[in-house]
Amino acid sequence: MRVLGIDPGTIAMGYGIIDGEELKVVDYGALLAPRGVPIARRLQTLYEDLRDVIARYQPSEVAIEEPNVARNRRATMAVGQAQAVAILAATERGIPVFNYTPTRIKQLVSGYGASGKEQVQEMVRIQLGLDQAPQPNDASDALAVAICHIVERRISRLLTLNKGEPEKES
Amino acid sequence: MRVLGIDPGTIAMGYGIIDGEELKVVDYGALLAPRGVPIARRLQTLYEDLRDVIARYQPSEVAIEEPNVARNRRATMAVGQAQAVAILAATERGIPVFNYTPTRIKQLVSGYGASGKEQVQEMVRIQLGLDQAPQPNDASDALAVAICHIVERRISRLLTLNKGEPEKES
Repeated sequence: MRVLGIDPGTIAMGYGIIDGEELKVVDYGALLAPRGVPIARRLQTLYEDLRDVIARYQPSEVAIEEPNVARNRRATMAVGQAQAVAILAATERGIPVFNYTPTRIKQLVSGYGASGKEQVQEMVRIQLGLDQAPQPNDASDALAVAICHIVERRISRLLTLNKGEPEKES
Repeated sequence: MRVLGIDPGTIAMGYGIIDGEELKVVDYGALLAPRGVPIARRLQTLYEDLRDVIARYQPSEVAIEEPNVARNRRATMAVGQAQAVAILAATERGIPVFNYTPTRIKQLVSGYGASGKEQVQEMVRIQLGLDQAPQPNDASDALAVAICHIVERRISRLLTLNKGEPEKES
C-alpha cells in the first residue's frame, strides 16, 4: 500500500507519499498555484501538477484532509475547490479516495484529537523517523493525513481479524 | 459564440447552452449526482457528465455562477467543489471560463441587481423566446449566467468600439 496524503489548498496543495508497511517516506512537498491569475488557471495548474505526482509515484490510495475550519466563506469555497481538484486527479486513475477530518488526523497521528499543530508535526517527524519536521507545513499536514489513513487501515484490519471475519478492504 | 452556462452544485449541476448572436437556446438541463455515495464518486460522475455535454455541444466559452450566499460551511464547500469540477471540465479542452456573481447576473439579465429569483427566471424565458420558464430551476439559473455572459460581451464590445479601439476579447 502506497498512500498519497493531500492537504488541499488553492494557493498551495501539500502532498506526501508514504509506503504503508514500514511508514517509509517516498516524497513530499507543496504544489504552488501561479499567483495573480484567474482561478480557472490556478486550479488547472494544480490539477496537472497533481496528476504528474500521481503518475510518477502511482499511489494505491489517496487520503485528503477535509478541514472543518475556514476563516471565511471565500476560504471555505477555496478548500472545496482544492478538494475537488484532488479528488478528480485521483478518481481519474481509479484510485480510491478517503477523507479525514482534522480531529481524526490528530487522534490517529498524535493519539489526541485536540493536539496542537506543532505537536502533530513533531509526531509526524518521529513516526517517519526524520531528523527534522518536513517543510513546508502543507507537506507536513499532507504526510499527517497519509499516516492517519495507514493507521486507520491497521485498526480496521485488526478489528476485522478479531471478529474472525475474512480480511477485507473497508 | 456558443456559451455554456453552469449553475454549480454537487447534488444538481444546472447547464444551459445558448448561441450568442441570436440568443438561441441549444439545450439545457440539470446533471444529477448519484445519491448516498461518497463525494468522490459524485464529483467524478458530474465531471464525466459535464465533459459529455461539452464534447457534444462544443461551446466556445463557459460562464459559471459564483454564488455569494451559502446556507452553511458544508454548502459553501460543496459549491467550491462543483465550481472546480466545472472549471476543470472546461479548461481541459482549452475553453475560457468566466465567473459571475448572482448580483451581476441579475443586473445583466433583468436590469436590476436586487431582482427576485422568479423575476430573473421570467426574464430568461422572455429573452430566450420560450413559452414556459425552463425547468428545473438549476437549468434556468444556468441559462441566466449564459445570457449574462453574452450581454457582458456585447457591452464590452460596444465600449471598445466607442473608444475607437480595435475589437478585442476581454
